[in-house]
Amino acid sequence: MFENETSFVRWLRGLIRGSGRGLRAGIRDDAALVEARRGHELILTTDMSIENVHFRRQLHPARSVGHRALARSISDVAAMGGQPRYALVSLALSEWATRAWVEELYLGMLSLAKRFGVALVGGDTARTSGPVMIDVMVVGEVPRGRALLRSGARPRDQIFVSGRLGLSALGLRLLMSQPRRKPTLRNEAIRAHLYPEPQCALGRFLSDRRLASALMDLSDGLSTDLARLCEASRVGARLWANLIPGPSPQDAQDSLHLALHGGEDYQLLFTVHPGRVSRIPARFGNVPLHRIGEIQRTKGLRLVETDGSVQSLNPAGWDCFAQ
Amino acid sequence: MFENETSFVRWLRGLIRGSGRGLRAGIRDDAALVEARRGHELILTTDMSIENVHFRRQLHPARSVGHRALARSISDVAAMGGQPRYALVSLALSEWATRAWVEELYLGMLSLAKRFGVALVGGDTARTSGPVMIDVMVVGEVPRGRALLRSGARPRDQIFVSGRLGLSALGLRLLMSQPRRKPTLRNEAIRAHLYPEPQCALGRFLSDRRLASALMDLSDGLSTDLARLCEASRVGARLWANLIPGPSPQDAQDSLHLALHGGEDYQLLFTVHPGRVSRIPARFGNVPLHRIGEIQRTKGLRLVETDGSVQSLNPAGWDCFAQ
Repeated sequence: MFENETSFVRWLRGLIRGSGRGLRAGIRDDAALVEARRGHELILTTDMSIENVHFRRQLHPARSVGHRALARSISDVAAMGGQPRYALVSLALSEWATRAWVEELYLGMLSLAKRFGVALVGGDTARTSGPVMIDVMVVGEVPRGRALLRSGARPRDQIFVSGRLGLSALGLRLLMSQPRRKPTLRNEAIRAHLYPEPQCALGRFLSDRRLASALMDLSDGLSTDLARLCEASRVGARLWANLIPGPSPQDAQDSLHLALHGGEDYQLLFTVHPGRVSRIPARFGNVPLHRIGEIQRTKGLRLVETDGSVQSLNPAGWDCFAQ
Repeated sequence: MFENETSFVRWLRGLIRGSGRGLRAGIRDDAALVEARRGHELILTTDMSIENVHFRRQLHPARSVGHRALARSISDVAAMGGQPRYALVSLALSEWATRAWVEELYLGMLSLAKRFGVALVGGDTARTSGPVMIDVMVVGEVPRGRALLRSGARPRDQIFVSGRLGLSALGLRLLMSQPRRKPTLRNEAIRAHLYPEPQCALGRFLSDRRLASALMDLSDGLSTDLARLCEASRVGARLWANLIPGPSPQDAQDSLHLALHGGEDYQLLFTVHPGRVSRIPARFGNVPLHRIGEIQRTKGLRLVETDGSVQSLNPAGWDCFAQ
């Protein structure tokens, strides 16, 4: 491990040198000092990744742990239509964490940060007798008045999702069934689980063109996240089972279950006024956009099955207090 | 404990209602959306508080744990001459943490936040099999170009500290020697340990009047923190033992040791150009300001003892990798 805090900070500063656009003081000072862009609002978010809760060291390579920890916070900025700018990383390290593991963790974060234009500007480090804990705070920005919230959905708005849902949950299942040392990144589901891609460009597209009435990211599973969007908007929703893009074409029932309740896809969930639906493209870049349902005045979630029957849909995704 | 995440978020929103000046979306959305003030730069900082590392539940009441967790980050903003504005709180909860404990923790944070004009705007919550972990991120602001950094100290600048040093370390010692259920807050040292007061007003005073060449807060102990300031400024320093304000007048040697190496005082350490020393008041509000030494060209720290002898001073405060 690092000899002392000074040697850790020196190593980290060397690693991230040159990534600090708009940065006046960073990792060596008490706090980071950064510019705020004119005419913009700030987006502030933070997400924890805890060993044995959000990752397992037997399943997740350190690089994936770093990638996922930062991706969660970047995705929260995407979920408001914003641009992520700065990140702070708090890291509580267990006895087992070697210097090589910590270095790989940071490489995973920095590689993602670079692609998304995020500067790593500060953080905190400590030792812990418990599991490894990473908390990543991201500051983003959005032109004033353009942020998309969860609360804007109105009855008759159409519900869309990006990408395929449940892919990450399927990837986790595959990893657990074959706990080899080298995960096969050629498998799409495993790649989606280990290295999820936040949808910032799509979020900004929806915000710039004023296409979405409400927006959020899918982190805890569609059934849970849509319920939160509906609660914030004081509405209900109806989904069509056959329109929901699941991860495994072979087993329709299993695929639907994963798509409804599997978390960590970091795709976007958004609602669109009926008059604007024609302006939503079938694909954004290489990500397909799917219309999956409709906002309704009646509270609660309902699922229209393939046979036309309607049943109520209960949130069964991730809830930290219910586990 | 809370039934689920929704009930926790509802409770928290009720608690902090009305504290969100400048806030457009907060705890219920993916991220917080806040205003950035014109002509200001942003200060970003984060600090972890881990059970059995930064606090012990046998010694620290939950209200103190919350107070201290937020005070650490507010103090980082004070250490740049800034004004704290927003806080995000990540909380990893162990099995033992009851709802009453969590509520007291938040009350400790919110009471301090209110006094310092800080709005609690977001965060994350999770369960952990390990110790309780709290990570508090604070966003502050400072008029453009006015932030005070660690790197501005020059040879012949005079070194000042606010308050009395080592008081918190003495308070911790007293708490450990008498682990009763109710700590006696009438004792100044115990109060300083459990409820430290960040020095934001003093930091802003030094920045507004351009009085300090370098500034930082004393979180890890004078010997460690001054070494960091000197490293950032590429200088050395000489301190006079008899000028250092220690916590216990009875035992001079013990008092000096606590003042040099005891951490968590959250007082300010700053350097002043010789031509401006006369403009530093003896007290700022109810906090005394003490001149304790001088910046020198020669690297390293030296301590002038009461008998005039000079010895080198090694950093012996807190270092997370060295524990």
